[in-house]
Amino acid sequence: MLEELKKSVLEANLELPKKGLVTYTWGNVSGIDRQSNLIVIKPSGVPYEELNVEDLVVVDLEGNQVEGKLKPSSDTPTHLVIYRNFNQVGGVVHTHSRWATGWAQAGKGIPALGTTHADYFYGEIPCTRKLTPHEIQENYEKQTGEVIVETFLRGNPMFVPGVLVNNHGPFTWGKNAQEAVHNSVVLEEVAMMAYTACSLTPGINPIDQILLDKHFLRKHGANAYYGQ
Amino acid sequence: MLEELKKSVLEANLELPKKGLVTYTWGNVSGIDRQSNLIVIKPSGVPYEELNVEDLVVVDLEGNQVEGKLKPSSDTPTHLVIYRNFNQVGGVVHTHSRWATGWAQAGKGIPALGTTHADYFYGEIPCTRKLTPHEIQENYEKQTGEVIVETFLRGNPMFVPGVLVNNHGPFTWGKNAQEAVHNSVVLEEVAMMAYTACSLTPGINPIDQILLDKHFLRKHGANAYYGQ
Amino acid sequence: MLEELKKSVLEANLELPKKGLVTYTWGNVSGIDRQSNLIVIKPSGVPYEELNVEDLVVVDLEGNQVEGKLKPSSDTPTHLVIYRNFNQVGGVVHTHSRWATGWAQAGKGIPALGTTHADYFYGEIPCTRKLTPHEIQENYEKQTGEVIVETFLRGNPMFVPGVLVNNHGPFTWGKNAQEAVHNSVVLEEVAMMAYTACSLTPGINPIDQILLDKHFLRKHGANAYYGQ
Amino acid sequence: MLEELKKSVLEANLELPKKGLVTYTWGNVSGIDRQSNLIVIKPSGVPYEELNVEDLVVVDLEGNQVEGKLKPSSDTPTHLVIYRNFNQVGGVVHTHSRWATGWAQAGKGIPALGTTHADYFYGEIPCTRKLTPHEIQENYEKQTGEVIVETFLRGNPMFVPGVLVNNHGPFTWGKNAQEAVHNSVVLEEVAMMAYTACSLTPGINPIDQILLDKHFLRKHGANAYYGQ
Repeated sequence: MLEELKKSVLEANLELPKKGLVTYTWGNVSGIDRQSNLIVIKPSGVPYEELNVEDLVVVDLEGNQVEGKLKPSSDTPTHLVIYRNFNQVGGVVHTHSRWATGWAQAGKGIPALGTTHADYFYGEIPCTRKLTPHEIQENYEKQTGEVIVETFLRGNPMFVPGVLVNNHGPFTWGKNAQEAVHNSVVLEEVAMMAYTACSLTPGINPIDQILLDKHFLRKHGANAYYGQ
Repeated sequence: MLEELKKSVLEANLELPKKGLVTYTWGNVSGIDRQSNLIVIKPSGVPYEELNVEDLVVVDLEGNQVEGKLKPSSDTPTHLVIYRNFNQVGGVVHTHSRWATGWAQAGKGIPALGTTHADYFYGEIPCTRKLTPHEIQENYEKQTGEVIVETFLRGNPMFVPGVLVNNHGPFTWGKNAQEAVHNSVVLEEVAMMAYTACSLTPGINPIDQILLDKHFLRKHGANAYYGQ
Repeated sequence: MLEELKKSVLEANLELPKKGLVTYTWGNVSGIDRQSNLIVIKPSGVPYEELNVEDLVVVDLEGNQVEGKLKPSSDTPTHLVIYRNFNQVGGVVHTHSRWATGWAQAGKGIPALGTTHADYFYGEIPCTRKLTPHEIQENYEKQTGEVIVETFLRGNPMFVPGVLVNNHGPFTWGKNAQEAVHNSVVLEEVAMMAYTACSLTPGINPIDQILLDKHFLRKHGANAYYGQ
Repeated sequence: MLEELKKSVLEANLELPKKGLVTYTWGNVSGIDRQSNLIVIKPSGVPYEELNVEDLVVVDLEGNQVEGKLKPSSDTPTHLVIYRNFNQVGGVVHTHSRWATGWAQAGKGIPALGTTHADYFYGEIPCTRKLTPHEIQENYEKQTGEVIVETFLRGNPMFVPGVLVNNHGPFTWGKNAQEAVHNSVVLEEVAMMAYTACSLTPGINPIDQILLDKHFLRKHGANAYYGQ
C-alpha cells in the first residue's frame, strides 16, 4: 500500500543528511496521498543510516496509525495540521538546519533580500508568534501547526512554502516530499545570505515588489520560463 | 562543430558544484568562439549530475539558437550583452555563491582589502545600481547585462573580471570559461575574507594603490613574474 | 579486562574527528566502569588515525595507572574530578570545537535560545569562573575539574550535561562515552545557532521556562515520549 | 641530494589542500638543511595535484637556484629572510587561509584569548606594520620578510611561530616543514575562534600571563608534560 509514496518519502528523508541539514535524528519528512488522505512519515528517533521503507509509518489525517510497527515522528501532529489546512501541500519537512534555526531563535522572519530568495519564496519567510503557555502545555505539536496556519491567514502557503517557528526552527512544504526538501535546502541558503547582508548593511530593506514578482513568476505560474 | 569549446564549457560547468559554488541548478557557464561568434551555454534548469556535452546549447550573438534540443539558460541574454561589449571576454560565469551573494544583497561592492583580492581584481569588485522597474519588466536578463556594462564604463573589465548584480549575485568572466570559473572561486574567497575584515575593523580602508599595483601586475601584463 | 568499555571508549574517541569536533590530537573521551571504579581514557597526544584499543589507558579514581603502556591524556585529572563528584556520569568528553570554544573564550555561557538547546540542556550551558593564579599553578587539571563541579553546585549535571571552561573550551558528559560525545556534537550546534541569534537580536532573552520544560521533558524523564 | 628533505617538503605542501588551507596554487612550504644551508621550496604557480618531488626547487640562502627546472615560488625571498634571521627555523609556510587572512586584512594581530592559542603561540600572533611604498616597489618579497623580522625584534619567533603580514596573510614556521604546516592549521583555528569571541564580547581582554605560561609550557620546554 502506498509503495510509490513510501519510496518517495524515504528518499526525501535520506536527502536531509546528504544536504547537511540534519544532525543525528533531528528533522523529518512526510508525504500525503490526497486520494486516500493517508500520510507517510518518518518514525521517531530512528537514525537516518538505518532507515528503511518498512520503518516508515502510515497515519490518517486525524493521526490514527494505519500501518507500521514504529511510533511516528513526535512532530506528526504539526504535519497533520499543515495537511488539513494547506490543501495543495503534498509534502512537509522539519529540520533544525543551522542558519534557519538561528533566525527562528532570534524570533525574526527572513526578509526577501535578493533574487535567490525571490526565486522560491514570494516575500518574507515569516517567523510565527511565540506559543502561549497554554499552547505549549496542551497538544504542543498540534498547536505548533496551528500557529503556522495562523501565520498564513492572509497569505498563500504555496507562494511562501516555508516558515520559522519561533524559538524552534523551520518547516517547509511543497507539492510533494521532494519539493519540500528542496525548499528546506533553499531556505537554509537564503538564511545564510540574509545574515551576511544584514550584517553588512544594518537596517537593510527588502527588494522591490517588482523584482520579487519578476523572479518568482519567472519560475512559477502560467508565464514561467525557467527550465525546460 | 565547436567540439573543443563544448568540452571546455561542460568541464567548466561541472567545476561549479565541485568548488561548492552552486546549489541545485543555480549558476551557469558559457564560452564563445570569437571566429564564428557562436556561444556555447548550459541549458536551463538541468541538474549538473546529468549534464552531457549534447545538452549544451549553441546560440549566436543575437541569441538565435543554432544547435541543441534544450532551451539555453534563462540568463543567456545577460551573457550575450557581456560578450558583445567586452570583446576580450571568452567565458562568462554566473553563480549564487553564498558570500558573494550576501554582498550583492547588501548592495555593496567588495573593497580591495588585501593581496588575495589584488592578485586577481585590480580594485573594488563593484556592485551595480539597482535596475529600474522598467528594466525589470522589459527584457530583464538583457538589462541585467546592460547594467553590468554600464558599471564598467570607466573601467577595464579584464582588470576587474567580476561584478555583483545588486540584489542578485555575482557574474565573472575571463579569457575562457575556465578562467571565468577560476575568478568565481576567487571572488567567493575574497567575499568571505572581506566580510571578516570589515567586521573586525569597521570603516576599514582599501589597500594602497601601490600594493594593488604590485600584486595585480605581479600576475598580469608584460612584467608578470608569478608562475612558470 | 574492561574489554567492552575499551571498545566503547575507542569508538567514542574516533567519533570526534568524524564529527569535525577535533583538530590533530585535541580532545579526549573517557568512560568509567562504576563497579570497579576504573576509567578508560585516551592516551596523551596520540593521533586519532593511529589509535587502537591497546593504546587506551586504564586508571583508578585517584589517577593511579592500572593498565596501558602510554601516558593517559593530560586532562585525566579533570575527568576524574567529574567522575568523583557527578556519580551518574559514565562518560566524559573534552574538545576544542570551534564555536563552543569561541563562547568559552568570550567567557559567556550559552543561553537557551531555542528548542534544539532545550532538547538536551535544561537551561544555559554555563561558563565557569576563571581559575585563580594559584589554581593554575598547582594541580591545574584537577582544579579545572573542581571549578566545573563548583559551577554545578546548585544544578543537576545530568540536566545540563556540559560546561564551558572559561578561556579554554567545552567539557560534556553523559551516562556513557557515546552519550557524552553526542552531547558534544549538540553543544557545538547550539553554540553556532546561539551566535547567529545573538547577532541578529542583540540583548535577546532565553526561551520561557515552560518551553524549556516541554522540550527537555519530551526527551528526558518518566514522561518522555520522543523516540521508540 | 637532500632526498629526505624534499620528501618532507613535498608532503608538507600536499598537506595544505588536505587541511583546507589553500585555494588553487595559493600557499607554499619550504624546508632548510642547516648543514648545507640549502632550501627546498615549492615551484611557483604549480597546482598541488600535479606536484612531484622533481618539481621542487633547491636554492641557497642568497636565493641562487642550485637545482630544479622550474622557478621557485615568488615568495622565496620572504622565506630566505626568515631562514637567515630566525636560525632555529627549519620550515616555513605561507597561505591565504580564510580566517587568518581576514585578520591580516583588518590589520590586527590575533590576541591570545584561550588555551588553544596558548598551547602553540606564547602571546598575540602579531600583525606587521604596512610596508612603505618604497618597500613595495623595491624587492617586495624580500621586504615582506624584513618586516616580519622587524616584528619579532623583541620576541622569540620560536615562541610565537607565526605572523600576519598586513593586508596580505599568514606566515608560520617551525623546526621543520611539518611543524610549520601544523602551526598554520592551528593559526587558522584560533583565528576563527578569536573572531567569534571578539564578536560576542567586544573589547575582550587576552588571557592572563599565568594561564598563557601554564599552557605553553605544558607543551614546550624542559618541563613539558603533554604527549608521550
